[in-house]
Amino acid sequence: MKIVQNDLYDYNMKIWQIEEGFKFSLDSLLLAEFVKAKNEDQIIIDFCTGNASVPLVLSSKYQNKIYGVEIQEEIYNLAINSIKDNKKEEQIKIINDNVLNILSYFKEESIDIVTCNPPYFKYQKDSIINEIKIKAIARHEIEINLEEIIKMASTILKNKGSFYLIHRSERLEEISNMLNKYNLHLKKLVPIYTTNNKNSQMILIQAVKNGKLGLKILPAIYTDKLKTFKNLF
Amino acid sequence: MKIVQNDLYDYNMKIWQIEEGFKFSLDSLLLAEFVKAKNEDQIIIDFCTGNASVPLVLSSKYQNKIYGVEIQEEIYNLAINSIKDNKKEEQIKIINDNVLNILSYFKEESIDIVTCNPPYFKYQKDSIINEIKIKAIARHEIEINLEEIIKMASTILKNKGSFYLIHRSERLEEISNMLNKYNLHLKKLVPIYTTNNKNSQMILIQAVKNGKLGLKILPAIYTDKLKTFKNLF
Repeated sequence: MKIVQNDLYDYNMKIWQIEEGFKFSLDSLLLAEFVKAKNEDQIIIDFCTGNASVPLVLSSKYQNKIYGVEIQEEIYNLAINSIKDNKKEEQIKIINDNVLNILSYFKEESIDIVTCNPPYFKYQKDSIINEIKIKAIARHEIEINLEEIIKMASTILKNKGSFYLIHRSERLEEISNMLNKYNLHLKKLVPIYTTNNKNSQMILIQAVKNGKLGLKILPAIYTDKLKTFKNLF
Repeated sequence: MKIVQNDLYDYNMKIWQIEEGFKFSLDSLLLAEFVKAKNEDQIIIDFCTGNASVPLVLSSKYQNKIYGVEIQEEIYNLAINSIKDNKKEEQIKIINDNVLNILSYFKEESIDIVTCNPPYFKYQKDSIINEIKIKAIARHEIEINLEEIIKMASTILKNKGSFYLIHRSERLEEISNMLNKYNLHLKKLVPIYTTNNKNSQMILIQAVKNGKLGLKILPAIYTDKLKTFKNLF
């Protein structure tokens, strides 16, 4: 596989990627831009961080300490190199493990913000998955599934801590029900459309641990009309 | 209270209303336009039908038999008069009772489509409600609440029958969880915005009894840009 170094959109950073195997997506940029830290003391963890695109974008907005968790060693290594090349070693730390093991690194109820751009697709034995294993694990729920991610987020979040998620629109009902099961409540939802006459493919979600019921559906985003991702929210 | 006869939008029908007390809303028109009957044999029931605006609009699109259920006698009488004046007595029947008593009129699992534009607001003893009782009952969950409506809809719907609902966006999480509890699954969701830089106030929902998981979020609707409600979906 060919490893390349690209511009991270227009954030004045470089990012290491695997050509044809693993590249950052617009979804990660939308997710990172959607996150609101209240102060510099809030600790942020990005689950399923991949090549660290979410932590890197977050570091352009905030001085907060940011952790990322990535299970795949090849991608973890890309993340480490990108963080070094952008001189963010002090701010961003990456853990090379499954999110399921998060309690080996952090205490319960110790984190303010969890972000996640997870594997989007369910995995059954007969699922058609990408033959490149790195890509398959990033896209399919092979190593972790939606319920496990939500459960782990709820476990390490402080009371009133926020969970930010980008996911497929088609899975909103499951997401809502799982959040509810683990005491996270929908606070904000953004429908994302590629253009104005097509169905929404993606949603951005903020859920709050032990939050009040009462969701805000924010203005929809049309990616074909976006001039920039910056200050979108 | 002053009773008036108005045009039902541009459907070439007249509708009786209570000036300052009870008038049809754009929400009802959006709901009725959102409904898709597969064939003329499908039976439709409109819960909390008010002055029968939803059945009347449905009768302009479909030949199907349509029932409405309205608890308030004053509003039921308006509905009956509007149906008579529009010569729809053969197609539309209104029942003057609480939706909670629906099984006195229909068997379990006998209906194809349930529609509902329900009271939007929760009711506690200290809720600030409209001093006009008719309006208070139409707007607040005094006589029936969201869970009861969803439960009754699920009870009378056939397997794979559809429940169409318009409701406040802020209650989406509750709606999703309640639907799930009663074996209804979100099939379509339409975010409705008054304009493109404000939060969505309203959502249209189609849920299917024992349906598959997998929601479609349809193109958002901006009511300030609507030229007509007709053929919107």
